[in-house]
Amino acid sequence: MNLSHWFTEEVAATGTAFSLKITQKLHEEHSDFQHLEIYDTQTFGKLMTIDGCTMVSTRDNFFYHEMMSHPALFLHPNPKRVWIIGGGDCGTLREVLKHPNVEQVVQIDIDERVTRLAEVYFPELCESNKDPRAQLKFIDGIKWVKDALPNSVDLIIVDSTDPVGPAEGLFGERFYRDCVACLSDDGLLVQQSESALLHLKLIGEMREAMKKSGFSHLQTLFFPQCIYPSGWWSATIASKAALTFRQQDCEAKTFDTLYYNADIHHAATAQPEFFKKAFA
Amino acid sequence: MNLSHWFTEEVAATGTAFSLKITQKLHEEHSDFQHLEIYDTQTFGKLMTIDGCTMVSTRDNFFYHEMMSHPALFLHPNPKRVWIIGGGDCGTLREVLKHPNVEQVVQIDIDERVTRLAEVYFPELCESNKDPRAQLKFIDGIKWVKDALPNSVDLIIVDSTDPVGPAEGLFGERFYRDCVACLSDDGLLVQQSESALLHLKLIGEMREAMKKSGFSHLQTLFFPQCIYPSGWWSATIASKAALTFRQQDCEAKTFDTLYYNADIHHAATAQPEFFKKAFA
Repeated sequence: MNLSHWFTEEVAATGTAFSLKITQKLHEEHSDFQHLEIYDTQTFGKLMTIDGCTMVSTRDNFFYHEMMSHPALFLHPNPKRVWIIGGGDCGTLREVLKHPNVEQVVQIDIDERVTRLAEVYFPELCESNKDPRAQLKFIDGIKWVKDALPNSVDLIIVDSTDPVGPAEGLFGERFYRDCVACLSDDGLLVQQSESALLHLKLIGEMREAMKKSGFSHLQTLFFPQCIYPSGWWSATIASKAALTFRQQDCEAKTFDTLYYNADIHHAATAQPEFFKKAFA
Repeated sequence: MNLSHWFTEEVAATGTAFSLKITQKLHEEHSDFQHLEIYDTQTFGKLMTIDGCTMVSTRDNFFYHEMMSHPALFLHPNPKRVWIIGGGDCGTLREVLKHPNVEQVVQIDIDERVTRLAEVYFPELCESNKDPRAQLKFIDGIKWVKDALPNSVDLIIVDSTDPVGPAEGLFGERFYRDCVACLSDDGLLVQQSESALLHLKLIGEMREAMKKSGFSHLQTLFFPQCIYPSGWWSATIASKAALTFRQQDCEAKTFDTLYYNADIHHAATAQPEFFKKAFA
């Protein structure tokens, strides 16, 4: 294949690569934290990459953004205060703000350039950035959580890059302890947790760290995500209390989604046989 | 990336490509029907490709083979007679034969070479080929179904390549009419139906053709399949009568699976919001 016409993310550790046909490179820069590129693709709309990894495409970001937000929001009895750690493309923020009961969302991404580029190249993801309930902060999310007061948040969404580089500290026991400390009693954490086919060991370590930190209830959700390694992604929800899915509220939701609905909520919680055995 | 160390399936129509790191090419031949290659990969075990498309890998074939067989078998009240059209790697055959109530399975693949290569490179998939209930035929599956007597089969599994080349006729109304004619009243057809993200139009045409042919109940199942385009695959089940999932039998199943279980059965039937709207 003619490499000059493809963007390829090659993952040495998993022995896999995924490519999208590109029509042009629209932007490239080295921010204070990472290397950012924007491409126009032939069939997936715009593509943002960070340090050579696919982050978000126009065509398929809905899976990830909906699954990082709606399941957790319909599991909390009445989520009012939400923090998004990472999430600089603002797609998760947009989904969270679709919930009328949410009163305040703080998005804390260390790299302002991600958001500035999203505003230009993914304006649809940024359409709620000016919602009066939203605050965008460009500071260190780990420190933000560490410095927070007890019972200051209902839902923490960790919408981060892979656990290397700036995001590494978001996958450890110290960070989870700080989350436990600032979450309300019925609060929860949801974190992107990579691919169950390719990164089962990482998911196991993450679940262990969550349990050790004081989260007594864990649930891993599974969903498709074409541009991420294996095309099958996961998010792990951790809470102090047992939570009940607000099925009726979900079925009566007043906003549109492309992937998520009440059936998909249940579907995402179904554990593959190999996964069950790994964490029995 | 150094292309000499990767096998890449590039799909022009979808603008996507997927690659596996290979350690060596083990075999290559042009059979009477298609071009067959076998590779050893770094992380996915063996890989068989047909006409340049990934067909089966040691590591991730379980998703596909389990989802092409168990959901349909637990939807039929008492499946005794099963045909597999295609399926030359014998992985679906192995899964079907795990069901003790199945009395006869005929696998009809036009290309004997696929099976001969599977016996050498995927022996685990062929471990039930000598089961006395199994018959392997290397003839045209379309003609086999056309010539069949009424009420001669309970379940037809179409485990084929993409709808180009030898498999094209398996995706049309004429073939489905022949299936309706030879299936028992409570019989069903299950067919691999590509990716709902990349091939929604094809799924729509296939569902239309199935309905026109006399199948009144359709259900599309969704599941991960890393090595197929988008990493998210589907199978469509078509039946003349409404069918009820034998949940208790599934929960009491006496055989092992890696992906499938009763929860996964329900999960696979959940329709994404965009899919529901497309076929409302």
